[in-house]
Amino acid sequence: MAILKVDLGERSYPIHIDAGLLNNQELVRGCIGGAEAMVITDETVAPLYLDRLLAALTGVRVVCEILPCGEDTKNLDTVAHLFEVMLKASYSRSVTVIALGGGVIGDISGFVAACYQRGVAYLQIPTTLLAQVDSAVGGKTGVNHSLGKNMIGAFHQPRCVISDIDTLDTLDGRQLSAGIAEVLKYGLIRDAEFFDWLSNNMLRLLSRDKAALASTIFSCCRIKSELVAVDEKEMSDRTLLNFGHTFGHAIETEVGYQEWLHGEAVAVGMVMATEMSKRLGWLKSSEVQQVRDLLLQANLPVTPPSTMSAENFLVHMARDKKVLDGRIRLVLLESLGYAKVVSDYPDIVLREVLN
Amino acid sequence: MAILKVDLGERSYPIHIDAGLLNNQELVRGCIGGAEAMVITDETVAPLYLDRLLAALTGVRVVCEILPCGEDTKNLDTVAHLFEVMLKASYSRSVTVIALGGGVIGDISGFVAACYQRGVAYLQIPTTLLAQVDSAVGGKTGVNHSLGKNMIGAFHQPRCVISDIDTLDTLDGRQLSAGIAEVLKYGLIRDAEFFDWLSNNMLRLLSRDKAALASTIFSCCRIKSELVAVDEKEMSDRTLLNFGHTFGHAIETEVGYQEWLHGEAVAVGMVMATEMSKRLGWLKSSEVQQVRDLLLQANLPVTPPSTMSAENFLVHMARDKKVLDGRIRLVLLESLGYAKVVSDYPDIVLREVLN
Repeated sequence: MAILKVDLGERSYPIHIDAGLLNNQELVRGCIGGAEAMVITDETVAPLYLDRLLAALTGVRVVCEILPCGEDTKNLDTVAHLFEVMLKASYSRSVTVIALGGGVIGDISGFVAACYQRGVAYLQIPTTLLAQVDSAVGGKTGVNHSLGKNMIGAFHQPRCVISDIDTLDTLDGRQLSAGIAEVLKYGLIRDAEFFDWLSNNMLRLLSRDKAALASTIFSCCRIKSELVAVDEKEMSDRTLLNFGHTFGHAIETEVGYQEWLHGEAVAVGMVMATEMSKRLGWLKSSEVQQVRDLLLQANLPVTPPSTMSAENFLVHMARDKKVLDGRIRLVLLESLGYAKVVSDYPDIVLREVLN
Repeated sequence: MAILKVDLGERSYPIHIDAGLLNNQELVRGCIGGAEAMVITDETVAPLYLDRLLAALTGVRVVCEILPCGEDTKNLDTVAHLFEVMLKASYSRSVTVIALGGGVIGDISGFVAACYQRGVAYLQIPTTLLAQVDSAVGGKTGVNHSLGKNMIGAFHQPRCVISDIDTLDTLDGRQLSAGIAEVLKYGLIRDAEFFDWLSNNMLRLLSRDKAALASTIFSCCRIKSELVAVDEKEMSDRTLLNFGHTFGHAIETEVGYQEWLHGEAVAVGMVMATEMSKRLGWLKSSEVQQVRDLLLQANLPVTPPSTMSAENFLVHMARDKKVLDGRIRLVLLESLGYAKVVSDYPDIVLREVLN
């Protein structure tokens, strides 16, 4: 089993990555501090893995909440409902919230844990590739608002992350591809060697080769934990993780979080950011083509919805969390494998890309 | 002007205490980091002090939200509404939330600041005695749920606290008394000398003598900031600040947060906790009588609602945030001026007090 430590002082925690971890009852039980647990999962994951989790929770008073699937669930109403469930169960501050599912479940659960009685422990058990490589790690929690994605939330680190690679066996192909979009992000922003490896091993990932998946998840978590360790609250380096996201969030907000998966919107966003990097003279056309081809190979979209105008993009992007003093800051690529935050780009270049 | 520093490393901040501070435009403007501010206040305070605040906010894009008065406003619906207002204003992460009002306004505003885009700065301008001595200091933010008081929230420290004593000139007498209940709490839990001083100067406080008020607010903030500095997240010593609150919250939850002011419920709770301390052999009857008499002198209630049974209390107290492994922990007095957290009391003694 690979164990990676996210180094955050007294908030440090381990990420366990391996096949079969949900069957390791000692590991799972050991992550629960008290005698109370609130399990939050969704309608897809519950029939597949909930029993396995519950079998490990011996001597724990457990309540399970099974939410509808999808990004539309990730809102304040769901959060209010979960507070109600927890209060009715008379859970104390020693309760552990357990997120069993993908990014939506993890983000909601983490935010509920952050605010229930001003903060309780939570355990991430991500069951999608996207959650295992990205959303379950780093302590960003929150929900969407109709006016913007992830606009309401908190930084609240989990007590532990358990990534059981076996759960990817049952993952829908489209969801797998969405996860691969975030995987490619790590290579593009921080690790040219990893990006090359991914270019050569895409078919292994698509065929769910376990060794390739384990190695990939470990690399992504390593890059993410390094960025989070130096910049937990996203004041500087952590911002790089938003590569492709400012464009992507605009798509998600415009189409309503349901038509497009997050990873799909990020894929298009990465193409747009890569294209803009080229127009600023930092990348070659062949490199933009390489990124685009790899995304296509992973069955991901590379062009925004035809209905979206430049104005549509700009309205949503103006509400991005990275806006500083009215200026939209963008994460762009100086080279394949090296990203930076840019705010002094010519507006005309952004407009060209949006058109 | 008295300035007290709350010592929390990189989250340290000053508390300014004096008359006329809202007229000190340089001080107020200096607390706003960016060029955006969201002012949250209520229908009582807005006509009195909002203009004075706005006059100081030169060059700042300001939106004001004036909420209905009272504890009933302090809920998740109000929080959701405020997020909507801020998103519609396209406020960025450099916005400062300004709480102008009493404890309800401060608690809501702080929680909104804690969760808007995962956390923005906020400034507390408390206008009630209770907020100036207690709720505006220490970073506890949150809202109520129909199943319990302050059950949803976050620890989020303000950037600065500005306590203008002049705002107490217009404070309703009943609200002044409610604040005095929290003032007496500080003496009882931590400072026998301060308690004696209060016993001898109650008439000065009730007549709003400014020197007495300034000295009182400073003493309370000093005691609170000491406790918060050693235990920001309430794992140990900070718990003492809940003296009288476990009983008090039960009353507030039972009667619905509207009939009783928070300070009034705390006053009764302190009598109950004092009475229980006596039954455990720690206080003399004459000391219980002294506490009761002082509360009566401050025009505060000393007996719970006649409609509340012991069972009513126990149901609500079981949901208290201090419950640990199913046990209700209580803050009791070893002597007047020295409180401690107790969980190994005989249940029969608690029942006697509740009856």
